Amino acid sequence: MTTEPAAASGPELVAGETTRLDVLTATPNNTGVDKAVAAARRVIEALLHAGDRSSAEMGAVAAQLNAVADHLEEHAGSVDERLVDMWAGEGVTRHDPITGPENAIAPPLHLAGRDDGSIGGTVALGLAYQGQPGHAHGGVSAMLLDHTLGVANAWAGKSGMTARLVLNYRRPTPLFKPLEVTGRQERTEGRKIWTTGSISVDGQVCVEAEGLFINKELPRPR
Amino acid sequence: MTTEPAAASGPELVAGETTRLDVLTATPNNTGVDKAVAAARRVIEALLHAGDRSSAEMGAVAAQLNAVADHLEEHAGSVDERLVDMWAGEGVTRHDPITGPENAIAPPLHLAGRDDGSIGGTVALGLAYQGQPGHAHGGVSAMLLDHTLGVANAWAGKSGMTARLVLNYRRPTPLFKPLEVTGRQERTEGRKIWTTGSISVDGQVCVEAEGLFINKELPRPR
Repeated sequence: MTTEPAAASGPELVAGETTRLDVLTATPNNTGVDKAVAAARRVIEALLHAGDRSSAEMGAVAAQLNAVADHLEEHAGSVDERLVDMWAGEGVTRHDPITGPENAIAPPLHLAGRDDGSIGGTVALGLAYQGQPGHAHGGVSAMLLDHTLGVANAWAGKSGMTARLVLNYRRPTPLFKPLEVTGRQERTEGRKIWTTGSISVDGQVCVEAEGLFINKELPRPR
Repeated sequence: MTTEPAAASGPELVAGETTRLDVLTATPNNTGVDKAVAAARRVIEALLHAGDRSSAEMGAVAAQLNAVADHLEEHAGSVDERLVDMWAGEGVTRHDPITGPENAIAPPLHLAGRDDGSIGGTVALGLAYQGQPGHAHGGVSAMLLDHTLGVANAWAGKSGMTARLVLNYRRPTPLFKPLEVTGRQERTEGRKIWTTGSISVDGQVCVEAEGLFINKELPRPR
């Protein structure tokens, strides 16, 4: 929903090459906040793997995490300043909850554009994304697909905000297995954009999505 | 989508009382894994507030978080054992990514049943849930609503898995403001269940959801 049209700044397509990919999501650094966020993702998942029946020292863990949060909060600027900073410049977002290397909630999903007009990426989900036993939460699938459809719009060159999203759940989406997430802008008419996508595993579709988007964006904080 | 029918074990409704609420989501403890998860949520949000332009020591933060993750991973059992443990017993889930006190991804949303048959709760979302500037990601709203519709089904006494979810986005959903999230089971026919819900702010609807659910559940790990 929020991804910038990175395609515009990508390299020219090469004639006759049908599988070349352009990355449409931010590439994580192994330094700074990205490295800290990658570690935070490990903590989120490990908390679910350990739980209260483990012998982990949860009191000490809580104290250490609160100390880290205290340090970060002491060094954070105001929310208004931060929003301006987050939305400065062009290119793909670094902070969204699906692909963002600065957001520990993001699995993260990496997406790339294909010269057939579609986009796609592969992601495996851990316990943090569980709905039914051993399977992805339907709401998590919806979240991945809403974002993927937005990135497909960016790749096609005309983006917008979600107006309507329809999700059809064909079969349960397993945790821990590589999921193929794809999207494609189907057509546009004035400010309306229609986009489809799916999540598949082992070649079988688990969830299908159809979205109607409106070609507008909220103003950036300044 | 995964909530157990806590309503079945709730107290009897009191005649003439129309506003009494029964909590349908797990209540966080201030000890053990719940306390550690609450601290992890602070870390997730503070990482987004600080970012790379802050003077926070991100290298040290990464090292501390990795040390916590190492400790937790060392004390975690196997995934299979953990899944059995997570799904043992009855009552509401503690680990889902929307309401779970053991899941740092969850905002968390707390939901309560009303004796008019609907359910609802209030939640404010931070930077971790951002889509368009200063507003909730459409996929996050979808995730909150899919789960809320599932809990509404549990409250009505007949639950299932999401087969189809339709989301209509009426206006942008702001971050940091109290959002009213509601759900209601509308009707059932055989194994089919139709359920609606919405997210509102200041009395204005931001997102509406309609879901079709099928009355079945995946087997629990044993």
